[in-house]
Amino acid sequence: MAMSTMVYNHLPTTLNTSFNRVPTIFAPQNVVLGHPRTKMSNPGIRLAESLSHLLHLHIETPSRKNPQFSNWDLLSEEKHNTPTVSPKEVIADRWCEIHGNKDWDNLLDPLHPWLRREIVRYGEFAQATYDAFDFDSFSEYCGSCRYNHNKLFEKLGLNKNGYEVTKYIYAMSHIEMLQWLQRSNLTETWSKDSNWMGYVAVSDDEETCRIGRRDIVVAWRGTVAPSEWYEDFQRKLEPIGLGDSKVEHGFLSIYTSKSESTRYNKSSASEQVMKEVTRLVKFYEGRGEEVSLTITGHSLGGALALLNAYEAAATLPGLPVSVISFGAPRVGNSAFRDVLDELGVKTLRVVIKQDLVPRMPGVVFNESFQKFDDITGTLEWIYTHVGTELRLDVSSSPYLKRGFNPLGFHSLETYLHLIDGFLSTDSEFRSDSRRDIALVNKACDMLVDELRIPHFWYQLANKGLVCNERGRWVKPKRDPEDIPSPIG
Amino acid sequence: MAMSTMVYNHLPTTLNTSFNRVPTIFAPQNVVLGHPRTKMSNPGIRLAESLSHLLHLHIETPSRKNPQFSNWDLLSEEKHNTPTVSPKEVIADRWCEIHGNKDWDNLLDPLHPWLRREIVRYGEFAQATYDAFDFDSFSEYCGSCRYNHNKLFEKLGLNKNGYEVTKYIYAMSHIEMLQWLQRSNLTETWSKDSNWMGYVAVSDDEETCRIGRRDIVVAWRGTVAPSEWYEDFQRKLEPIGLGDSKVEHGFLSIYTSKSESTRYNKSSASEQVMKEVTRLVKFYEGRGEEVSLTITGHSLGGALALLNAYEAAATLPGLPVSVISFGAPRVGNSAFRDVLDELGVKTLRVVIKQDLVPRMPGVVFNESFQKFDDITGTLEWIYTHVGTELRLDVSSSPYLKRGFNPLGFHSLETYLHLIDGFLSTDSEFRSDSRRDIALVNKACDMLVDELRIPHFWYQLANKGLVCNERGRWVKPKRDPEDIPSPIG
Repeated sequence: MAMSTMVYNHLPTTLNTSFNRVPTIFAPQNVVLGHPRTKMSNPGIRLAESLSHLLHLHIETPSRKNPQFSNWDLLSEEKHNTPTVSPKEVIADRWCEIHGNKDWDNLLDPLHPWLRREIVRYGEFAQATYDAFDFDSFSEYCGSCRYNHNKLFEKLGLNKNGYEVTKYIYAMSHIEMLQWLQRSNLTETWSKDSNWMGYVAVSDDEETCRIGRRDIVVAWRGTVAPSEWYEDFQRKLEPIGLGDSKVEHGFLSIYTSKSESTRYNKSSASEQVMKEVTRLVKFYEGRGEEVSLTITGHSLGGALALLNAYEAAATLPGLPVSVISFGAPRVGNSAFRDVLDELGVKTLRVVIKQDLVPRMPGVVFNESFQKFDDITGTLEWIYTHVGTELRLDVSSSPYLKRGFNPLGFHSLETYLHLIDGFLSTDSEFRSDSRRDIALVNKACDMLVDELRIPHFWYQLANKGLVCNERGRWVKPKRDPEDIPSPIG
Repeated sequence: MAMSTMVYNHLPTTLNTSFNRVPTIFAPQNVVLGHPRTKMSNPGIRLAESLSHLLHLHIETPSRKNPQFSNWDLLSEEKHNTPTVSPKEVIADRWCEIHGNKDWDNLLDPLHPWLRREIVRYGEFAQATYDAFDFDSFSEYCGSCRYNHNKLFEKLGLNKNGYEVTKYIYAMSHIEMLQWLQRSNLTETWSKDSNWMGYVAVSDDEETCRIGRRDIVVAWRGTVAPSEWYEDFQRKLEPIGLGDSKVEHGFLSIYTSKSESTRYNKSSASEQVMKEVTRLVKFYEGRGEEVSLTITGHSLGGALALLNAYEAAATLPGLPVSVISFGAPRVGNSAFRDVLDELGVKTLRVVIKQDLVPRMPGVVFNESFQKFDDITGTLEWIYTHVGTELRLDVSSSPYLKRGFNPLGFHSLETYLHLIDGFLSTDSEFRSDSRRDIALVNKACDMLVDELRIPHFWYQLANKGLVCNERGRWVKPKRDPEDIPSPIG
């Protein structure tokens, strides 16, 4: 793009190599395999290397490869016609355990196949918040969901999952940390103030039967690349509730901000989600059903999930509340953790060893990116992780590249791939894993080139432009039923 | 992408800001309008600025805007339903003049509307070589045309132009300047040695009637961003023909290389094109028709067009031979120019004032990009432009951004837009120009943001992956009739 409209990217391109893409028409995927790494000695790489050293990431060299996959052609051809999902077992008898009432004791290592399946399912609900999001800053609907809530799962192929979306959640986008959320460039937009931030869904009758209770899901959208966090972290703890609990100011702002002058945030994300969850809990409990609440999210979405769980457990005592988060940062202090424990909130934090985001706040760079923040080592101890960790390792998958790749390490699809292949800490990657491997590269470049899957392939044809009958390329109007409405 | 597979990009990203793209799913078009240009003082910008100063580009500030377009919304809405082409006039009586037999005297400034239309048409033939090219280095057909020659124009919406493709031309891709042409990463490919390099087409009966003669067109594909040229220019002149004529070694290699061990280049591009052109000329002259040859190309394609014209004029005396080139570099010395004149080759070089490529060879950077090449100022005088220049100016269009944008200035679609709007050196942009403005941004970011056209929008849905009935994302097999064959 012209320099006059440079993307304001907080992460210098020298570090975030994933951003150095070549424009589509000229040389879109022109990766030169085996090219001598003459460019590898630039300052960005050196910084990355010292960083990984400092964080004890122990990144392997790219040469390591699992010998069992010598014939990649055969592998990919064979895989094309195999099922992508495992058979569904009836887990009704053990749903409380799967939901974490015993802190997933004896279920994680080795990972129980029923639990694996559930984690992937919740992760896919979180992934949906990215896949359906309108990122187009030239669209009047930038920051909204591209589909209305009745057809979200169908459009994303998630309708087989046995849940129905009941409500969309919006959060204000013009609070302090502007760079975190999306804003349209246009003056006339569906909303100048809000972003689609997630949704509430509930299991249907058939699924309820299989999983042993009526499960309400809240899925929170995360945000963009970790790059934006390096600078934007407010690093300010703010009290929550009555005791000594404190949480990160920015997360809490997104969760609680509202304004009468907005269309979608006359009530806050917190109020919206609690109203809907409360309604559903009352409705189904009123019918005598057992009800659970499972809150999921990736990255920033994982932080919001924790705040949401805190509020839900405090507001709806007796309701089993679990959080399944992916690549989530630390959220609050140790008092916050203790209160969550007292409230009985069960948290399964899925973390990739190489992902930097779960180390934040605590590992923060200063603006110039040349030295670590002065307060490193302090915040790390103030901000405390909660719950149970399920730790994954990029190097466990023979399908993934080994190079330093902060975007790829943090990508939710990378998480889902590694969970799908995780048997136990000591095992090789699961040979009968079924999730489509190609999905990993939707928004990053993590798959080994032998798989021939393009990088960053999740994209609209012609960025949504279509050729009309006159031969002009235009952006089609959005289907009226998919235009966000504060009433519907 | 991971650092282990970095694109080997000759142009440092600091200068070529067009390459700093944000990955699709995270923040694809998140251009922050009016953002303070705090990042503008980096070395790349400074280099660009001194460069433009040195080259007397006189780049305007981005603030200049044509006041007649204050309401961009209205403009774009209104334009959506207007025709994209002007009415076709019968130009049979003046075809020789339009074809350049009088060196386009009195036709260029002001630009004759008949000529404008013809130039755009030939430019679109050249553009087709980009639009249909398979750039996917993970494809076994990388470097080929995505469609067979019978359906090329139909697929690209060019069938209304009244021409039929009769032959594809291939050039060897493994000659010295590796970086210029495309190569697949795979071991099993349609061809390890060749690239689709253009095609021969001929006017149909109806069009022949309108334009006054049977017109044979050769369209040559150019190559990628000018960035690749900075380093790859061999800067070596090589003799062509018998006299003192010399041309750039790299261009000549592409045009003349062949090898018995290849599938598609047992004969050279030169031999392929001359065989087909000779066949067509004989065929139509044998029917008593008047025949012309028009050779077109953009960038490197413009250089090949000139070599082709030289050979055609020498081989087929009496045949009117014209070249319409866009953003072409210098090709040979002054003796080469003189021979072309003697042979009667008519060349119309369309050049954008701000485009760097027509200044090459002559303005060459050294590897570190920190000082100009020692020999600058020498080569400039050795390499000589030929023919008649039609000079365009980015600042003439109210739709284009003003910032330094080497990729945008060189883009063929930018050329076609400026020709479509060109009336005369002293006039404003043509108010009744009809070509779809959105096309400009197919492979660059040149349109003002008010038009709301995404940048680099010409792209396949999901980079060509499709979801099969199993739910797996796979690359579909190419239609057998579109698989290149050295026989057909």
